[in-house]
Amino acid sequence: MKVLTFGEMMMRLKPPAHERILQAQTFEATYGGAEANVAISLALLGNEVTYLTKLPANLLGDSALSVLRKYNVQTDHVLRGGDRLGLYFFEKGASVRSTNVVYDRKHSAFSLAKESEFNWAEIFKDVTLFYFSGVTPAVSDEMAAAILAACEYCQKQGIEVVCDLNYRGKMWAPEKAQAFMRKAMNYVTVCLAHDEDFEAALGIQAFDSNHGQALEQKKQYQNAMRMVTEQFPNCHTVASVLRNIYSVEDSEWMAMLYQNGQFYETNLYHPHVMEGVAAGDAFGAGFVHSLIHEFSPEETIQYALAASVLKLTISGDFNLVSDAEIRSIMGNSKAARLNR
Amino acid sequence: MKVLTFGEMMMRLKPPAHERILQAQTFEATYGGAEANVAISLALLGNEVTYLTKLPANLLGDSALSVLRKYNVQTDHVLRGGDRLGLYFFEKGASVRSTNVVYDRKHSAFSLAKESEFNWAEIFKDVTLFYFSGVTPAVSDEMAAAILAACEYCQKQGIEVVCDLNYRGKMWAPEKAQAFMRKAMNYVTVCLAHDEDFEAALGIQAFDSNHGQALEQKKQYQNAMRMVTEQFPNCHTVASVLRNIYSVEDSEWMAMLYQNGQFYETNLYHPHVMEGVAAGDAFGAGFVHSLIHEFSPEETIQYALAASVLKLTISGDFNLVSDAEIRSIMGNSKAARLNR
Amino acid sequence: MKVLTFGEMMMRLKPPAHERILQAQTFEATYGGAEANVAISLALLGNEVTYLTKLPANLLGDSALSVLRKYNVQTDHVLRGGDRLGLYFFEKGASVRSTNVVYDRKHSAFSLAKESEFNWAEIFKDVTLFYFSGVTPAVSDEMAAAILAACEYCQKQGIEVVCDLNYRGKMWAPEKAQAFMRKAMNYVTVCLAHDEDFEAALGIQAFDSNHGQALEQKKQYQNAMRMVTEQFPNCHTVASVLRNIYSVEDSEWMAMLYQNGQFYETNLYHPHVMEGVAAGDAFGAGFVHSLIHEFSPEETIQYALAASVLKLTISGDFNLVSDAEIRSIMGNSKAARLNR
Amino acid sequence: MKVLTFGEMMMRLKPPAHERILQAQTFEATYGGAEANVAISLALLGNEVTYLTKLPANLLGDSALSVLRKYNVQTDHVLRGGDRLGLYFFEKGASVRSTNVVYDRKHSAFSLAKESEFNWAEIFKDVTLFYFSGVTPAVSDEMAAAILAACEYCQKQGIEVVCDLNYRGKMWAPEKAQAFMRKAMNYVTVCLAHDEDFEAALGIQAFDSNHGQALEQKKQYQNAMRMVTEQFPNCHTVASVLRNIYSVEDSEWMAMLYQNGQFYETNLYHPHVMEGVAAGDAFGAGFVHSLIHEFSPEETIQYALAASVLKLTISGDFNLVSDAEIRSIMGNSKAARLNR
Amino acid sequence: MKVLTFGEMMMRLKPPAHERILQAQTFEATYGGAEANVAISLALLGNEVTYLTKLPANLLGDSALSVLRKYNVQTDHVLRGGDRLGLYFFEKGASVRSTNVVYDRKHSAFSLAKESEFNWAEIFKDVTLFYFSGVTPAVSDEMAAAILAACEYCQKQGIEVVCDLNYRGKMWAPEKAQAFMRKAMNYVTVCLAHDEDFEAALGIQAFDSNHGQALEQKKQYQNAMRMVTEQFPNCHTVASVLRNIYSVEDSEWMAMLYQNGQFYETNLYHPHVMEGVAAGDAFGAGFVHSLIHEFSPEETIQYALAASVLKLTISGDFNLVSDAEIRSIMGNSKAARLNR
Amino acid sequence: MKVLTFGEMMMRLKPPAHERILQAQTFEATYGGAEANVAISLALLGNEVTYLTKLPANLLGDSALSVLRKYNVQTDHVLRGGDRLGLYFFEKGASVRSTNVVYDRKHSAFSLAKESEFNWAEIFKDVTLFYFSGVTPAVSDEMAAAILAACEYCQKQGIEVVCDLNYRGKMWAPEKAQAFMRKAMNYVTVCLAHDEDFEAALGIQAFDSNHGQALEQKKQYQNAMRMVTEQFPNCHTVASVLRNIYSVEDSEWMAMLYQNGQFYETNLYHPHVMEGVAAGDAFGAGFVHSLIHEFSPEETIQYALAASVLKLTISGDFNLVSDAEIRSIMGNSKAARLNR
Repeated sequence: MKVLTFGEMMMRLKPPAHERILQAQTFEATYGGAEANVAISLALLGNEVTYLTKLPANLLGDSALSVLRKYNVQTDHVLRGGDRLGLYFFEKGASVRSTNVVYDRKHSAFSLAKESEFNWAEIFKDVTLFYFSGVTPAVSDEMAAAILAACEYCQKQGIEVVCDLNYRGKMWAPEKAQAFMRKAMNYVTVCLAHDEDFEAALGIQAFDSNHGQALEQKKQYQNAMRMVTEQFPNCHTVASVLRNIYSVEDSEWMAMLYQNGQFYETNLYHPHVMEGVAAGDAFGAGFVHSLIHEFSPEETIQYALAASVLKLTISGDFNLVSDAEIRSIMGNSKAARLNR
Repeated sequence: MKVLTFGEMMMRLKPPAHERILQAQTFEATYGGAEANVAISLALLGNEVTYLTKLPANLLGDSALSVLRKYNVQTDHVLRGGDRLGLYFFEKGASVRSTNVVYDRKHSAFSLAKESEFNWAEIFKDVTLFYFSGVTPAVSDEMAAAILAACEYCQKQGIEVVCDLNYRGKMWAPEKAQAFMRKAMNYVTVCLAHDEDFEAALGIQAFDSNHGQALEQKKQYQNAMRMVTEQFPNCHTVASVLRNIYSVEDSEWMAMLYQNGQFYETNLYHPHVMEGVAAGDAFGAGFVHSLIHEFSPEETIQYALAASVLKLTISGDFNLVSDAEIRSIMGNSKAARLNR
Repeated sequence: MKVLTFGEMMMRLKPPAHERILQAQTFEATYGGAEANVAISLALLGNEVTYLTKLPANLLGDSALSVLRKYNVQTDHVLRGGDRLGLYFFEKGASVRSTNVVYDRKHSAFSLAKESEFNWAEIFKDVTLFYFSGVTPAVSDEMAAAILAACEYCQKQGIEVVCDLNYRGKMWAPEKAQAFMRKAMNYVTVCLAHDEDFEAALGIQAFDSNHGQALEQKKQYQNAMRMVTEQFPNCHTVASVLRNIYSVEDSEWMAMLYQNGQFYETNLYHPHVMEGVAAGDAFGAGFVHSLIHEFSPEETIQYALAASVLKLTISGDFNLVSDAEIRSIMGNSKAARLNR
Repeated sequence: MKVLTFGEMMMRLKPPAHERILQAQTFEATYGGAEANVAISLALLGNEVTYLTKLPANLLGDSALSVLRKYNVQTDHVLRGGDRLGLYFFEKGASVRSTNVVYDRKHSAFSLAKESEFNWAEIFKDVTLFYFSGVTPAVSDEMAAAILAACEYCQKQGIEVVCDLNYRGKMWAPEKAQAFMRKAMNYVTVCLAHDEDFEAALGIQAFDSNHGQALEQKKQYQNAMRMVTEQFPNCHTVASVLRNIYSVEDSEWMAMLYQNGQFYETNLYHPHVMEGVAAGDAFGAGFVHSLIHEFSPEETIQYALAASVLKLTISGDFNLVSDAEIRSIMGNSKAARLNR
Repeated sequence: MKVLTFGEMMMRLKPPAHERILQAQTFEATYGGAEANVAISLALLGNEVTYLTKLPANLLGDSALSVLRKYNVQTDHVLRGGDRLGLYFFEKGASVRSTNVVYDRKHSAFSLAKESEFNWAEIFKDVTLFYFSGVTPAVSDEMAAAILAACEYCQKQGIEVVCDLNYRGKMWAPEKAQAFMRKAMNYVTVCLAHDEDFEAALGIQAFDSNHGQALEQKKQYQNAMRMVTEQFPNCHTVASVLRNIYSVEDSEWMAMLYQNGQFYETNLYHPHVMEGVAAGDAFGAGFVHSLIHEFSPEETIQYALAASVLKLTISGDFNLVSDAEIRSIMGNSKAARLNR
Repeated sequence: MKVLTFGEMMMRLKPPAHERILQAQTFEATYGGAEANVAISLALLGNEVTYLTKLPANLLGDSALSVLRKYNVQTDHVLRGGDRLGLYFFEKGASVRSTNVVYDRKHSAFSLAKESEFNWAEIFKDVTLFYFSGVTPAVSDEMAAAILAACEYCQKQGIEVVCDLNYRGKMWAPEKAQAFMRKAMNYVTVCLAHDEDFEAALGIQAFDSNHGQALEQKKQYQNAMRMVTEQFPNCHTVASVLRNIYSVEDSEWMAMLYQNGQFYETNLYHPHVMEGVAAGDAFGAGFVHSLIHEFSPEETIQYALAASVLKLTISGDFNLVSDAEIRSIMGNSKAARLNR
């Protein structure tokens, strides 16, 4: 099995520790992007994975590329060119103070790339699973077209298509998102949808906004998941993470899987959250790893959520954990003691 | 409306992260002082505010001044001269280990300043609200005299006088504090009093030390607040923060306001405390901002406490938050999720 | 009273903050080792204490030595020579992710030292209490022989022998540990045993592994403690820390003492754990300090546990706390507020 | 005398010490821009100075603004709006390895500003000297138009116009630069021109490229300076820095002034260069300070060059030096010994 | 052309800036080793290169591997296993104080590897050039045997063999080195020899120790180079760097090439040395790059020395420079000015 | 031989790298003081040495004490008490920009100590050599009295008295210094005098200020040295360092010794200066070490200067070098190459 993921990679600039941007004289620079995160996570778990993107032909593009290589992701098809690397400033919140992001991703090499730059037949050679998130088509109309072209190619070749809906309200409006995603869903075979994704990205209205946080709406989530498979018959599998968020550090997590008319649930985690970003990508990678290794539905959803919960303990976008570490917390939210 | 705050600004030297002083090879240097903190907070919220102090005419005085300017505080009346900048070493506690402070503020430029150096008529030109805390008169007899002179001037000119009692047992004894503060309270129109302030600074005995933490003594707080307005008829408003402190990171917070014979209460916050200092100053600034903008009593006390609770998430003495951030947590102790 | 502790000192290399080793471009270097930790803790509490070890005659050995001296431990008998300083890489866990250690201690100067290099008569001159942990004999057969030789010498000279069983599964198997420790226990007068120590180091089977965490097995701990004194009549005192561990930051702690047929218990602490290592050594030092100063049994066990709980707030292996700080939290798990 | 400077301010991101971008996990963030640098330098020397620019209405714009305020520059006319703050990555060279810059300044708030956003009558109220560099008109046609509009206004109001030609080959071609600058020079009263500026920005060909470095071409520099005043009669003063650059750290510096038909020269400095950027801006600020304080021509050129040479010892774009420090090295390239 | 390099990779731990080990509380961790350095340099210059080594199967081995991948070196044949990663502590000198190294490389995975673990036929598939340095056979007798086995295989397959003699007095004595290297030289086709290498590694006595530094002994170097080709007829090319070292930061560099009976010399560089290590490896990589691209002898030796001199400006073992940067200083020891 | 040194120890706070105080958000904290520096240097060279001072009984005093212990200095007689630790902010210069110091040492524990607090008989038990510098009596009249009392005691007991005149113009005026030092010189047996010391501290006028830097005035130095022994017959030895200072990093150094009517000179060093402070203390320690070990006059002055020149490569006040390192550069200003 060989995986291809496709999306944009950015530089993240974060003040040290809990400093605010107004205080910062240094920034920690890391790289990330939904599909790059998934690629790196899959590579760390031992899978063969290629990442497709376009990076500027300058030192920042070189740096982004070197990070992908560091974690053993194949980069043979990465395009180089364009003006700039997208970047964003990330101000980590604490307690009641929300995390803050200043995006500076417009005019990036990726966002100005053309669909015609990609040779899908060559890119998908030997690939058996294609992964993308809703962020990629939201970047530009050209990249939305690229996603559709890739999906069509996959369907023809029998390549599995996994999509994390990953709705981003700062990138496109629900109408535009739905118009595109409902088209794309005809090619998607596995759908990951969290939080507002069902409604914003697909127009599926299953939630009652008065009913509070996610864990109080498990039934509604189940309805939404079932509706996805009904409305998009090619999609045989839907998975969702349900979170109650109490503060930046404090939240509760569980996940559900819907497959062949059956629901599978994980236990509940109540982790201390060190860094809340890219947990969805960690889930996606854990899920794809489970698909590749043909885990049972129960194991699949436990594995994906455990990967996601571990991500909450890692700085930066990449889920730098091993299979053994994921397994050590599956179905068990208590950390083992130091072994020495 | 234009605010003047008056007090001492010091350099704080803190070991990085959770290191103890005995381990430290570097110190993070920030600046602060009760009234400087209030001034900066007010300026960040968009108010016009002048800070009055005396700083040494050396590189450290320049640095302190540049920090005030950075945050848009007016410094036209700051005196320069004297020997040294007061400073203190700050060792942050953790869990059951208390925070530790080594003061080195004696002989500072401010503590050796003379009342006669201040030209009140010029200083208070256009000022409509004067803010000081009990720390300033505790610094020296001359500065106590300066506070009284300023208060008298304000009363004559109809300038509002806001005082945070801010009792500091390491700076003066209760007897001396009470002798001064009870005199000053004849000029104070708005009084902020927390914790032991009522008893130590004003001699008001309303608490039963056996009854445990503050939140178990709401009635006693109300009595004490009422007694302030009875004993000092010029004081039309009293506000207090009530805290139960469980550990360095763990405490519960609410606040009460007494005005026109009525009590107003906030909801209860249970924040994770990153840095517990200067939360009282953040409260004071939030309160003064509410006065300036004529918020209702309910909004006033909610706003002031929300500002104070946000401060617990900020490193350093200054409450580097915006009006929008304060409003986003008013009456709601759960942080919003990352918006992207 | 003069104490001698004997064991290996290593360099610990830890990525900054919560970084994983795979991310780290710098490591924080500190020094430690069970018996060095105890020595430093005792010296900081004002006791006269000598540390015995062997360090390589290079810059790393010099650095380790300078750290001992910094904290006022006597190093007159430290041997110099051999190839290398033992070291380990320490990756701090978070929440559900376990702390990770990569040991690199083989072939160290200490592990290759010979029993014959130690002149016990000279080393024990004026010493009244000897402390070692189960780590030392696990290092090598020669060091196990050295422990036995030292114990014999102590018994002859009437020197108290305190042993923290401190079983390390990565260093020796239970069979080998038991064979040695049961011999050594004939000389030990005070035994500290936590967690799996009773079973792994002494072969005492008092626990029911189905009954969950330590605090649910107080009775079993009491049985085990009593059995120690029955099987090793020279051992007049046994103490144990009982912990329920919920995550890297979250655990509950209490301790028990068995002496003259009586059990003494502390209150329960529920601290926020900043760094979970070397808490047992802090307990040992607190316990020895109590012995030296002839505290009552109640005070002894409270003091030792309070020392141990404070250690959880300190970075690095050494318990850099004062007697006053220990006393401020004895029997009281709430931190005092900042005093200023 | 009151100065206005007008241009773009950017964030500079620099790897720590001598790291290359490919190695960097953190970047030091500072702010700068030719005219902002001049403004800050003038303010530090005690002059009244306003900076005019457009900054995005986000946290990065706030931070840039706070830095201007920190150093006492007036910011009342700064426009807020637009998409992004221009930024660049700065990789400091060493020895034979050149310094490297990755610009990311396109689409910045300033570059997309319109001339019509500036109300010149209000902006120039009380201003007596206007300063800009050739970087500003190179940013965009609108900003070139703004410079012309400002220049016209100044000429009408008798405001002195100082221009540092400051040619940047990465921003515009010589033809375009010359077309604009030769128009603007009709309003300029004081011209600063270094290195290739005469030729690239004005089309004045006075140099023989075979004759090696600047200090070997003093005569040619004098010819070029004289030609400026001949071709642009409103320009009564021309000043130039001449540098021989041997490596990143090693260069020789002197300066010349042409005024009223006379040449004035400084002594030669051979400083160790810590950071070679923004030395021209430091020269410009020193020169304007001399104009404001009506120094003699000899003092003027010595002062300006001494300011510039001191800049070579400062990290970041701003010349954080005092008048006393500049004077201490005027005409003397040896540092005083530590005075204690 | 495809290159294989073979040797040991270690972790280097260096105090920050100019700190001594006795002062250090943190160490910068980088990775390196003569042949890994060459591999990375070649990959950065765009060549296809595989690195062969053995790394422990722990987090440190993973980290070393990830660094190789980051810089695009192929690692398919890297063995995993053994106890530990070799490491060393590196204390950078300054001025008259020498750089200091504390080696801790004994018992490393590589030093305990067996020749039989390497499958040469598979490893050398498609390889056209083999590179090793004298460090590898000095590690252990097994690795010396591996070098010989590899050399024999290369000779049979017509693979070019490049050897940097790289004598290390701390690893083996001249007698042992000569015994081995004189045997290996029968397979070597290109020999790089600097400083004491001729004498210590090959027993060629061509120098007069009274005649001072290298640049005063160019004739002797030429004799030595000629003797190499005479004594080892398979060796058609010899190259040497000649350095006069005046202090840690100050030295002069040139290089000579002997090929087909002719000597080729570079110009002289007098760079400021930031970090003096691994310059020989940078030379080796530059030389091999020249061989691969069939540069003329003149260009070859200029290119290799320019690469080496650039390395002196880079922190860490890897020569992180581009072909364009090398070319920009070839035959020209003055740095270009900042281009913007 | 056992040495006692006596003086004040302060905390030094320095911005990182080359930052100015106005830029600094962190300070590196080190400890130092002329006589503490000498004590530590002597201890590192293997001598038995006690340091005498008074430190405040707070965490900063503890830290200062721990640093002395770290480097093996005996601290048994250190007094504890008083208000504060003296401190100073240290802004390192570069090239033509001078190093800057903001002293904050007034009211320190040491400066307010009383002569009567010192029990000289107990303090000098077993001491054979007493060392002080002119800084100590400059601190306060009481400390000047203490120096005289100590000197008298030494003369009675036949203890050698070494004095580094160490004139500090910021601490006392020449008249006051001369009045005291000329009295003290009656007890001094070995005098170290550099730069302006002869004139400012002793009133010996041997220099012609028109004759430029020190190395151009060797004859005048010799006259001054001879005059010291003539005017103070108990002083049998005088030594001086002569420096030409060209910039912060660039200076030339040599030293002279006068003993038994003969002059001894060292070779000339031209080191790159990393940190210019405390080189005189390093010289003093090297000199005392030479006295203790009875080196020949030639070796003595070479050794002392080599120690001093090595100090220029070390960060912080302490000369952290070994005897072997000093010997490696004696009479040879070129650093050895890396030995590996």
